[in-house]
Amino acid sequence: MEELAQVKEKIKDFILELEDKKSIELFDYLAFGKMLRAKLIFKIAGFNKTSLELSAIIEMIHAASLLHDDVIDEANTRRGQESINSKYDNKTAIMFGDILYSKAFSKLALLNQEIANIVANAVSLLSMGELQDVELSKKFNNSYDLYLEMIYNKTASLIEASAKSAAILAKKNIQNFALYGKNLGLAFQMIDDILDITQDSQTLGKPALLDFVEGKVTVPYLFLWQRLEDKEDKKILENLFKKPLEQKEQTWIKQKMQTSKALVDSINLAKKLGLEAKEAIKDEPNAKDLGEIILAMIDRDF
Amino acid sequence: MEELAQVKEKIKDFILELEDKKSIELFDYLAFGKMLRAKLIFKIAGFNKTSLELSAIIEMIHAASLLHDDVIDEANTRRGQESINSKYDNKTAIMFGDILYSKAFSKLALLNQEIANIVANAVSLLSMGELQDVELSKKFNNSYDLYLEMIYNKTASLIEASAKSAAILAKKNIQNFALYGKNLGLAFQMIDDILDITQDSQTLGKPALLDFVEGKVTVPYLFLWQRLEDKEDKKILENLFKKPLEQKEQTWIKQKMQTSKALVDSINLAKKLGLEAKEAIKDEPNAKDLGEIILAMIDRDF
Repeated sequence: MEELAQVKEKIKDFILELEDKKSIELFDYLAFGKMLRAKLIFKIAGFNKTSLELSAIIEMIHAASLLHDDVIDEANTRRGQESINSKYDNKTAIMFGDILYSKAFSKLALLNQEIANIVANAVSLLSMGELQDVELSKKFNNSYDLYLEMIYNKTASLIEASAKSAAILAKKNIQNFALYGKNLGLAFQMIDDILDITQDSQTLGKPALLDFVEGKVTVPYLFLWQRLEDKEDKKILENLFKKPLEQKEQTWIKQKMQTSKALVDSINLAKKLGLEAKEAIKDEPNAKDLGEIILAMIDRDF
Repeated sequence: MEELAQVKEKIKDFILELEDKKSIELFDYLAFGKMLRAKLIFKIAGFNKTSLELSAIIEMIHAASLLHDDVIDEANTRRGQESINSKYDNKTAIMFGDILYSKAFSKLALLNQEIANIVANAVSLLSMGELQDVELSKKFNNSYDLYLEMIYNKTASLIEASAKSAAILAKKNIQNFALYGKNLGLAFQMIDDILDITQDSQTLGKPALLDFVEGKVTVPYLFLWQRLEDKEDKKILENLFKKPLEQKEQTWIKQKMQTSKALVDSINLAKKLGLEAKEAIKDEPNAKDLGEIILAMIDRDF
């Protein structure tokens, strides 16, 4: 069986242990996506019994966090499928999230004490990040530092913890892999934020510029705001924040992002973080393999 | 400082470690109540550095579960205070719950592997129990077995895990203390369910017979339903389920519970479970102390 299919199978085994009909039913509606975290773990620690278990645990935690995120964002879909909060209700999504989290922690406890501590800490950070995301969306945030802290917590912390944990299993340099995971995670989130602007709504499967409409001032908007020298323009951008955008307003934003180079510099920043991730593990025997994950992420059609 | 005050202080220390302003702010709005689980741990394992830490972890987990419960039940108050989902919003309550859970698990991981596994399993059960509670409330549940399974999961599992974990710390008989905790937990929930019927709404701080109005067919209703021999009466009871109750309907229920002895037999069942809990640890050197927790719980003004 293919590696990622085995991860899914392992998660199903964990859930079957609960002997809970409802949880088994709900498992089928989890959308696992590309399983970046599991892939990363296998690239670092190889594919074996323990790394398979760790991957299943981390993907379960990621799935739990998405269940709670979808409740918070009132999302109806997740990766093109109807989300569990929409198909069932918020109660079901919250509690199934708790079931997945706690099952993952009970397995972690048996796996490795140090890893259990690292991963649980990352879950604290990602929950804090989710709250910060909501908080920052209340008004126009023009602080890059606050944005960076939030995406580190919300996205990079669990990817960092995955890389670190895999390095512990493989007895590799923990610090280097932590840095690799952290920068990979930051780049990953920035690219996600950039694609929200550059890709058409059909490719994305959601409305164009949705982040900004929902109050998320991501890195291209931050750069744009900083570079708009005309006070009037700054005001226009601030006024468009968190509102449905007409076609000509969308065009205005996109054109300003081109002329100010806010967009291209955001892409370059994400690439730079990707290269820093590569740099962190350049002396590792499988540096080429590890670099490929980053390349696959960076070389996108923006 | 008094023991339970030290538990609160320890929880605050854990939260301060997160260096998250929002979490520190939210800590002040947690309603800790009587801290039954912490008390239980101290009675079993004595008061020392490790048992204090375990108590803080378990009370944090309990607080997290209540945050999510309040979102699910759309509750506005918790122990006479405004609940966090009401004071802030559902998002905040869900994420702060996740922060408390994950911080508790990261501490558990460092404390003791076996205990970490036991407690995490209990959290899976309590989340399953919460979903079962919602599920059972959809229509009139007349199965005592389903009720018992649900209250074991929802309430008794974490009390059982607390007693078991404390026994591990104190190197006492794990099985006996698990049984003690389980029966104590079941009795505790049943008594809570009975008080919803026998106490006036002022004492309870919530409307009378609220459980039944909300669709919860607790043990006194189950016994009543079983004992109503007249098919008409059974029908009346089923029809009152999950509806606002007029005064005369409330009186009808209460009278039928008296004449059928459904109420007194529910109380006796809870007492019997309490005595079974006592029996489980009767050979322990501090059996008297451990029995007192149960007595304090059972000898209530019904």
